[in-house]
Amino acid sequence: MFPEVKGINEECGLFAIWGHSEAAQLTYYGLHSLQHRGQEGAGIVTSDGEELHIHKNTGLLTEAFQAGDLDRLPGRQALGHVRYATAGTSGYENVQPLHFKSEDGSLAMAHNGNLVNYQGLKSELERSGSIFQTTTDTEILAHLMKRHRSDELRNQLKEALPQLIGAYSFAVMTEEELIVALDPHGLRPLSLGQLGDAYVVASETCAFDLIGADYVRDVEPGEMLVFNRDGMFSERFTEAKERALCSMEYVYLARPDSNLEQINVHTARKQLGKQLAREADVEADVVTGVPDSSISAAIGFAEQTNIPYELGLIKNRYVGRTFIQPSQALREQGVKMKLSAVRGVVEGKRVVMVDDSIVRGTTSQRIVKLLKDAGAKEVHVRISAPPIIRPCFYGIDTSTTDELIAANYTTEEMREKMGADSLRFLSIDGLKTGIGRDDSQPNCGQCLGCYTGQYPTAIPNGKKELVGSGKR
Amino acid sequence: MFPEVKGINEECGLFAIWGHSEAAQLTYYGLHSLQHRGQEGAGIVTSDGEELHIHKNTGLLTEAFQAGDLDRLPGRQALGHVRYATAGTSGYENVQPLHFKSEDGSLAMAHNGNLVNYQGLKSELERSGSIFQTTTDTEILAHLMKRHRSDELRNQLKEALPQLIGAYSFAVMTEEELIVALDPHGLRPLSLGQLGDAYVVASETCAFDLIGADYVRDVEPGEMLVFNRDGMFSERFTEAKERALCSMEYVYLARPDSNLEQINVHTARKQLGKQLAREADVEADVVTGVPDSSISAAIGFAEQTNIPYELGLIKNRYVGRTFIQPSQALREQGVKMKLSAVRGVVEGKRVVMVDDSIVRGTTSQRIVKLLKDAGAKEVHVRISAPPIIRPCFYGIDTSTTDELIAANYTTEEMREKMGADSLRFLSIDGLKTGIGRDDSQPNCGQCLGCYTGQYPTAIPNGKKELVGSGKR
Amino acid sequence: MFPEVKGINEECGLFAIWGHSEAAQLTYYGLHSLQHRGQEGAGIVTSDGEELHIHKNTGLLTEAFQAGDLDRLPGRQALGHVRYATAGTSGYENVQPLHFKSEDGSLAMAHNGNLVNYQGLKSELERSGSIFQTTTDTEILAHLMKRHRSDELRNQLKEALPQLIGAYSFAVMTEEELIVALDPHGLRPLSLGQLGDAYVVASETCAFDLIGADYVRDVEPGEMLVFNRDGMFSERFTEAKERALCSMEYVYLARPDSNLEQINVHTARKQLGKQLAREADVEADVVTGVPDSSISAAIGFAEQTNIPYELGLIKNRYVGRTFIQPSQALREQGVKMKLSAVRGVVEGKRVVMVDDSIVRGTTSQRIVKLLKDAGAKEVHVRISAPPIIRPCFYGIDTSTTDELIAANYTTEEMREKMGADSLRFLSIDGLKTGIGRDDSQPNCGQCLGCYTGQYPTAIPNGKKELVGSGKR
Amino acid sequence: MFPEVKGINEECGLFAIWGHSEAAQLTYYGLHSLQHRGQEGAGIVTSDGEELHIHKNTGLLTEAFQAGDLDRLPGRQALGHVRYATAGTSGYENVQPLHFKSEDGSLAMAHNGNLVNYQGLKSELERSGSIFQTTTDTEILAHLMKRHRSDELRNQLKEALPQLIGAYSFAVMTEEELIVALDPHGLRPLSLGQLGDAYVVASETCAFDLIGADYVRDVEPGEMLVFNRDGMFSERFTEAKERALCSMEYVYLARPDSNLEQINVHTARKQLGKQLAREADVEADVVTGVPDSSISAAIGFAEQTNIPYELGLIKNRYVGRTFIQPSQALREQGVKMKLSAVRGVVEGKRVVMVDDSIVRGTTSQRIVKLLKDAGAKEVHVRISAPPIIRPCFYGIDTSTTDELIAANYTTEEMREKMGADSLRFLSIDGLKTGIGRDDSQPNCGQCLGCYTGQYPTAIPNGKKELVGSGKR
Repeated sequence: MFPEVKGINEECGLFAIWGHSEAAQLTYYGLHSLQHRGQEGAGIVTSDGEELHIHKNTGLLTEAFQAGDLDRLPGRQALGHVRYATAGTSGYENVQPLHFKSEDGSLAMAHNGNLVNYQGLKSELERSGSIFQTTTDTEILAHLMKRHRSDELRNQLKEALPQLIGAYSFAVMTEEELIVALDPHGLRPLSLGQLGDAYVVASETCAFDLIGADYVRDVEPGEMLVFNRDGMFSERFTEAKERALCSMEYVYLARPDSNLEQINVHTARKQLGKQLAREADVEADVVTGVPDSSISAAIGFAEQTNIPYELGLIKNRYVGRTFIQPSQALREQGVKMKLSAVRGVVEGKRVVMVDDSIVRGTTSQRIVKLLKDAGAKEVHVRISAPPIIRPCFYGIDTSTTDELIAANYTTEEMREKMGADSLRFLSIDGLKTGIGRDDSQPNCGQCLGCYTGQYPTAIPNGKKELVGSGKR
Repeated sequence: MFPEVKGINEECGLFAIWGHSEAAQLTYYGLHSLQHRGQEGAGIVTSDGEELHIHKNTGLLTEAFQAGDLDRLPGRQALGHVRYATAGTSGYENVQPLHFKSEDGSLAMAHNGNLVNYQGLKSELERSGSIFQTTTDTEILAHLMKRHRSDELRNQLKEALPQLIGAYSFAVMTEEELIVALDPHGLRPLSLGQLGDAYVVASETCAFDLIGADYVRDVEPGEMLVFNRDGMFSERFTEAKERALCSMEYVYLARPDSNLEQINVHTARKQLGKQLAREADVEADVVTGVPDSSISAAIGFAEQTNIPYELGLIKNRYVGRTFIQPSQALREQGVKMKLSAVRGVVEGKRVVMVDDSIVRGTTSQRIVKLLKDAGAKEVHVRISAPPIIRPCFYGIDTSTTDELIAANYTTEEMREKMGADSLRFLSIDGLKTGIGRDDSQPNCGQCLGCYTGQYPTAIPNGKKELVGSGKR
Repeated sequence: MFPEVKGINEECGLFAIWGHSEAAQLTYYGLHSLQHRGQEGAGIVTSDGEELHIHKNTGLLTEAFQAGDLDRLPGRQALGHVRYATAGTSGYENVQPLHFKSEDGSLAMAHNGNLVNYQGLKSELERSGSIFQTTTDTEILAHLMKRHRSDELRNQLKEALPQLIGAYSFAVMTEEELIVALDPHGLRPLSLGQLGDAYVVASETCAFDLIGADYVRDVEPGEMLVFNRDGMFSERFTEAKERALCSMEYVYLARPDSNLEQINVHTARKQLGKQLAREADVEADVVTGVPDSSISAAIGFAEQTNIPYELGLIKNRYVGRTFIQPSQALREQGVKMKLSAVRGVVEGKRVVMVDDSIVRGTTSQRIVKLLKDAGAKEVHVRISAPPIIRPCFYGIDTSTTDELIAANYTTEEMREKMGADSLRFLSIDGLKTGIGRDDSQPNCGQCLGCYTGQYPTAIPNGKKELVGSGKR
Repeated sequence: MFPEVKGINEECGLFAIWGHSEAAQLTYYGLHSLQHRGQEGAGIVTSDGEELHIHKNTGLLTEAFQAGDLDRLPGRQALGHVRYATAGTSGYENVQPLHFKSEDGSLAMAHNGNLVNYQGLKSELERSGSIFQTTTDTEILAHLMKRHRSDELRNQLKEALPQLIGAYSFAVMTEEELIVALDPHGLRPLSLGQLGDAYVVASETCAFDLIGADYVRDVEPGEMLVFNRDGMFSERFTEAKERALCSMEYVYLARPDSNLEQINVHTARKQLGKQLAREADVEADVVTGVPDSSISAAIGFAEQTNIPYELGLIKNRYVGRTFIQPSQALREQGVKMKLSAVRGVVEGKRVVMVDDSIVRGTTSQRIVKLLKDAGAKEVHVRISAPPIIRPCFYGIDTSTTDELIAANYTTEEMREKMGADSLRFLSIDGLKTGIGRDDSQPNCGQCLGCYTGQYPTAIPNGKKELVGSGKR
């Protein structure tokens, strides 16, 4: 049921809790439910009021934390993070929360999203003597805060955050205070909950359900929530701009049992599948979804068309770093590493294969081949979102326009490349209808940058080159 | 998509390969696809023609095997096993394959199923001087073979196997030969495949798909397949009796992408769901399945009734021994360890909850409560199989009649206990229709012992007491 | 200070405790002090009066036991073992204590020593239907006990032990009783101690010192000590024969802080060094010992000759399985893996290098070369024991006569092979004088089999061939 | 043979190699031989000319590096470090080499020694916006280098190093260059060697011996050695000041097989023991040393006095983090964790116990008690160095004057406290004579700060308070 790496990867999930005797343990479980947002590092910082305690490591949560590690994280406040990282920079030093110590005390910091003006800010800071120890964009905030030497954490943030452009849910914690902040467009989700007297904050509401916390509300764009001994306080560090919640969170990234701005993700996906069926019906015998993220859309498609939904593809759940990968020779001999087609289901059938996205096109091509090799008579590919024609700069790893197949080929050319019998995408309007955010209402806009090339924030020159100009 | 422990647990999965240069690796991947059949131990024995090489350990496959372990398993023939074990006997010594060394050479042995006359045979052997080092019933076969001192492995088996009563897929391997055998009733599945020139044998066909092997046929009840330098030979060690393939394999145990006797498991489950809908329809807003094994039946139910299928329950996939379990205190405070209800899907709705079995009833009760706590207005429980009223003696861990709720309470009493608004089971005939085995044909019977109390084999006195007599 | 593998390896160390609330922990520390007797496996069995609990694994004690493992070993009686194994048979199944379960209860068993008639007994037992699961000679005892079906553990032992020929300290434990037994010649050491009200038994007295226990006495040849709820009882299972305590224990195997039959091992070694100096003095500038086991003898040699003792050789203590071994290329380039010569000490000097044994001669040759490469002007090799000219059948791994250099070459030939400037061995009489056992007294004999070819027990035909006939 | 933690702990060992195809592997073995200088963290950085590769972790070298880790460190240059850390700051972030990335490239940095003006420099840097991510004094150098924005690494160092006061062997490495530097007083050792065409640098020469490298010379105080594609270059970053090589390196810290400024450490220690015997002879039966570091001195003492050297104390070598520590209860019941007295050697004897230092006095007291409990009739404590009466600020962890027993009590008071029959220290002159550095020659001075309170460098105010004023 969890999204898998396939060319679209979000960077990170956040969880924080304020005022609970089992803060570290609850953060561990909260992070477990956010594991799909980052699988290359996990960390927890706690405060016992006197001192910060930290444990973090590379890998899955169960790899990064061993028996006993939680016991060494005392205190009633905790901040946790799971990290996704592109190859080569997945070292320990980039695992979050980052942790800084100075004469004035300690600071821990965790971040979900991506800053588009990171490179420029970093150059500037380095020129004036700053040393960066990580290659994360997250560290920039610490340096900016340090340059504004207010004594108050909240004032440091109010001065530093407006210098950032991009997507960010930030959480910073000192011995005495926890502050979370959401960027002015609200590109990434961030929700507030309550567990008894304790406050919890998480990237997705599924974390609340797991630990038995109640959802309170979503953090607002440009809002800072301050937690300290006096309670919780809401402040603004800037005016909110037009809301631009990432569409991809609904389509692909978030867990189906999470609600984003009170819209359930599974339900939204099923509606996308139904809408797709309305726009791009086809005569077929079975509908199947590409696990895990496209199952809901496939069920919606089946329901709308009355074509039976079947389990035509199954995922092999190799878990963790200790799994022994097959040799290249074995892979070529046909050992399936991610998906298998279920011959008993697809043989001799006309199959509708519902997926949620095509990035480079190679995965889709492989799945079509799997189905045909298992005897499918026809394979009709249906994508429950519009074509991705531009890169994302806000925390999803979709590389450059050049590498996006839909930016460079027509739908018919793509269909041919992947060997499908037909290929259809959902329309932009269909996407909006399916998700069901009423964007005539305030704060209900959504980012469609990867589908349209229209980005909610400025894009610095260095980045602009990545946008390039595809065929569409 | 894999079955989870909930009071019904099968003991073990087998995989063997004869004549492939990457025998150990392929067995590792084959066992991975059988991981759902046993999660407490895994082992592989290979033969390089001169010597047997073995590696096995407790835990999941990824815990039992580390980088490098496969490299120390040379040879073109391999035999692997994943083990389920009840608490207290999950020690290393019981992990299979068992491995015996004598002056005449080595013998490795793996077993799926359960022998009902184990206790009597063991007492007898002990009285005449045998020492048992494991508490598995598997070891009995080695002692029986030893007592019949033919030089030929196949003759030893032909003399020993007929003394066993119960369910068994056995695989035994020496330096020079591999033999697999299926009990006379064929209670457990065992299939033969081919991968290039190599032969493969597996408890389920999903193992073939993963490694790219082709399905050839199922092993027949009472049949022995012998693999050696001269090729493959089929022999009978006894007459086949009336076929009695375990129904529960279709309902609950096998992977949905496996075919058992050429019937796809997902498809069978979906038909069970449809049949259930025909027998026990209900007015409702959403259908949801208990993950993972009941999803297919729930989709079938939804398809038949036109009530939408939704993701109302989600499983938390804590993986492996290194996951840190929540304290009792946290569990009581509401940290969910196995399933969460998806509030966004079930709130205010009349929910049909499809499950495949009720053993003690406590799990069902908990799930009904989860759904109601998440706001479900009504919860209608539908079980895609008949009530389990008698224990299984053939390798599924369903304890005694006394502990089986359906043996001791009426359906209405059960409904009340679990707090559901209605509760219905599939009929015995509905089960047969749904699975679709044509039992008027030869070799197409199935074991319904747990649903009817009518067992295909004799049941020794010691065991009989466990059957007891429930209310039904 | 601990002996290292160099062609002489003893099989195993035993530790047992009866009647202490921390039985498992104390056994762990006891085994730690016996680690030099076996580094390839470690195990502990405890009894809580109801049931046996076991944990064992391959590797060093710190590798075999992890945090928490001791907590799962409840009970006031414990039996532990560390194992040395020759390559190829170091698998888990051979790690001791062995553990057998039958209808009558459980039996755990641990063994130090070697049975010379193992092969014959095993063949016989296999012919009558016994199955062996290990390749240890230890298992034979269990089968012999089983054949004699007395109800009493002590009676089973009294019938089974006399059938064994060879060296053995055995410990067997059931839920209710612990029995230790020493072979009729007392070839291996076994001592009894007390810790408060608890009894302890160990292969060497150093284990008593570590845990703060007091030495009581040594177990006598042919004696059985029975520990149960009624206390401790001494019985004889056979008449004691002429005592034959292994000389090599003094020379090489035991820890220098142990006392064997009340003679301190370090002191004995120092006396051997002094005696060697008396027999084979030489003009030289420095004396150095081969660490660790020859340090004491070297100090004795220096003291006797007034040549200064210096640290001319130093050992590199690579510890455990996780140490990354150098590639062959690096080894050839001069990366030292076991010993380094200390140039600052030996350069330009005439060096006396004291060692305790020469087996194949290759190690001595390498050390002479190390010293010469580091600038030693002369290297005079002095061995603090007589030449080893025959194999040991009692638990020391010294292979066949053919492989023993001293059996096949004269002292002068050996000197030349190893490139030393002189080579001298201690005489047989010097060995006796040095150790200081008064063999005119009863029970004070010692085994000199490897130095003389005269063995205290019969040697079966199969073994006799190994003895062969060297040049001497 | 390696020093053990007992209140005197040095911070760190360095190893670097320039121009060898197996750079990472050789650094691993080099660090292994320096393991005694730091056991709480280990790391290696390599450069392949394009990029730096790093692996480091907490714990012993064998804990920090696993199979495969070295394979991921390509390149012909490598820099390694083993770290000692005081409790509480032993986290991963402080493990060295430190690693900094900026737009201009990467920088790795390792350090042995201690900076006395660290606190002042850090405050100043923080006030101007620097963020420190570690609590090591090492990081200060990176910030100072960054503030001087020369393009040339060597120029950055020439500007930054003179601002530092204290003891330091530094090694810094970029993609293209390796530079090592020794502080102007040469407080810590640092030697240059050669292995074929490759250069090696190490804190102690024992690392050269292990890998088969040849010693070339020691790095000079105030000297920088630059290694790059053009070869090796010596430069001065400052004038050398009066040499002040740490005396404690000879007495206690260094490995006995290392040479410091061409004086062998074992030999120096033995001379200290002889000198001690001349100054403080006593009537006794045996001499014993406290393992491991005092063995050489004890042998010298024995040689000088003709009292036999015996193995009266033995160390228990618990290795690594996985060793299970005894409960407090067991410790109180007498489980010995570090040292055992050898009863067979000391019982009824007058014992000279030679040690190399007394810090808090508690260890000595415990050892005297061990010996007396084992039956020693008299215990005469002889210390092969003068009393430690002042703290060290240069990288040895000897806390404050208040905690130093010799600063606050007379020798007679100390003797009484520890229950010894006599107690004598070596004189300052005896120390100089024993080590044998001819300090009338240039560059042959040594630091005696901890014995005299006269420090070679200025001591900042904050630190001065620690000096306090003991009774002497």
